[in-house]
Amino acid sequence: MMTIKVHHLNNSKSQRILWALEELGLDYEIVFYKRQPSFAAPDDIKNIHPLGKAPVVEIDDFVMAESGAVVQYLIERYGEGKFMPDRSSSSYAKYIELMHYPEGSLSPPLLDQLFIRMLPVEDETFKGFTQQRVMNHLSYVDGLLEGQDYLIDNEFSGADLQLTFNLQGANAGGGLRHYKNLEAFVQRMEARQAYQRSIDKGGEFSLGFKK
Amino acid sequence: MMTIKVHHLNNSKSQRILWALEELGLDYEIVFYKRQPSFAAPDDIKNIHPLGKAPVVEIDDFVMAESGAVVQYLIERYGEGKFMPDRSSSSYAKYIELMHYPEGSLSPPLLDQLFIRMLPVEDETFKGFTQQRVMNHLSYVDGLLEGQDYLIDNEFSGADLQLTFNLQGANAGGGLRHYKNLEAFVQRMEARQAYQRSIDKGGEFSLGFKK
Repeated sequence: MMTIKVHHLNNSKSQRILWALEELGLDYEIVFYKRQPSFAAPDDIKNIHPLGKAPVVEIDDFVMAESGAVVQYLIERYGEGKFMPDRSSSSYAKYIELMHYPEGSLSPPLLDQLFIRMLPVEDETFKGFTQQRVMNHLSYVDGLLEGQDYLIDNEFSGADLQLTFNLQGANAGGGLRHYKNLEAFVQRMEARQAYQRSIDKGGEFSLGFKK
Repeated sequence: MMTIKVHHLNNSKSQRILWALEELGLDYEIVFYKRQPSFAAPDDIKNIHPLGKAPVVEIDDFVMAESGAVVQYLIERYGEGKFMPDRSSSSYAKYIELMHYPEGSLSPPLLDQLFIRMLPVEDETFKGFTQQRVMNHLSYVDGLLEGQDYLIDNEFSGADLQLTFNLQGANAGGGLRHYKNLEAFVQRMEARQAYQRSIDKGGEFSLGFKK
């Protein structure tokens, strides 16, 4: 019998894992952690994984970090074909690309935007550079969603789930109001019953960090 | 007959793709691009992919970006079981985690370190914060490689290939001299024949960016 334990930090990427598990209809246990006033994760997550970040997920005896990887793995192993295209289809390459893209490319400028607000960083050159990177990415993603509700074959997949967290962060950081497809996408994702259940179980969720 | 065309920017993550293709023994075509003096990619990459970054890889008629995704996809599709653990093995979750980790978690602080040097960014708080993030990650990866030559089951895999680029960047940025496992790892990877062939075909490779 498989067991899953999610080390869940409030207002963090571990929200993705709860949502994925709810979409997949799997049983799991949550261990709750609370951010420190500095916004840092509490030190005791380091007892579970040396990087000391959430999510960390225990699947049977294996301890796994990296939210994009965990979502990809859970869907492959337990999805019974749901939430990802068939590996022999032409959509599979796009799926793999968009499973890596949110953390690999979209997240770094959004993180920098967050650091600029939180530390704060006063350097005007870096602020302008970061803003330009964020806008390039949001325009790109807005284009991907033109005329469709979901990223891959217009069906909900792990790629939509991955993307949502980063867009929620972008919304907190500088707003999605100039990107009509992205605002509607986030609302559509947050309206999903599995998403709602993940909020019920994981606790209040907000990326509108205030210093 | 499958065709692969790599849009290759000098001193960029597209080096990974050439190396992966050499490891896999696949035929491919290279289209060369050269960084501008500002370090930015030339505008004509935007004709291939709207983000205008390398690598972009054309596999038959599909245009794919995101270097980690391309490496994962090429190995799955053409590796005939090489360079990744069997999906039914307990090592597979670790493999997926470490295919996402280099770009998802290790790269962002290294990129910030690069921006600090290139823009340059003068903010002392951000510089210290970035340095701490880099050190945390390098210590973690140094630990992963303690007592073994490769990340997964002590056999070369896509995860080693993914990690190498970021460590080469870290070496240029601030040095790996305090991380003996990482220095030796990079030397071991760069000594591989397929790596050497990728340099021969792709051209000189250096991440020691100078402003």
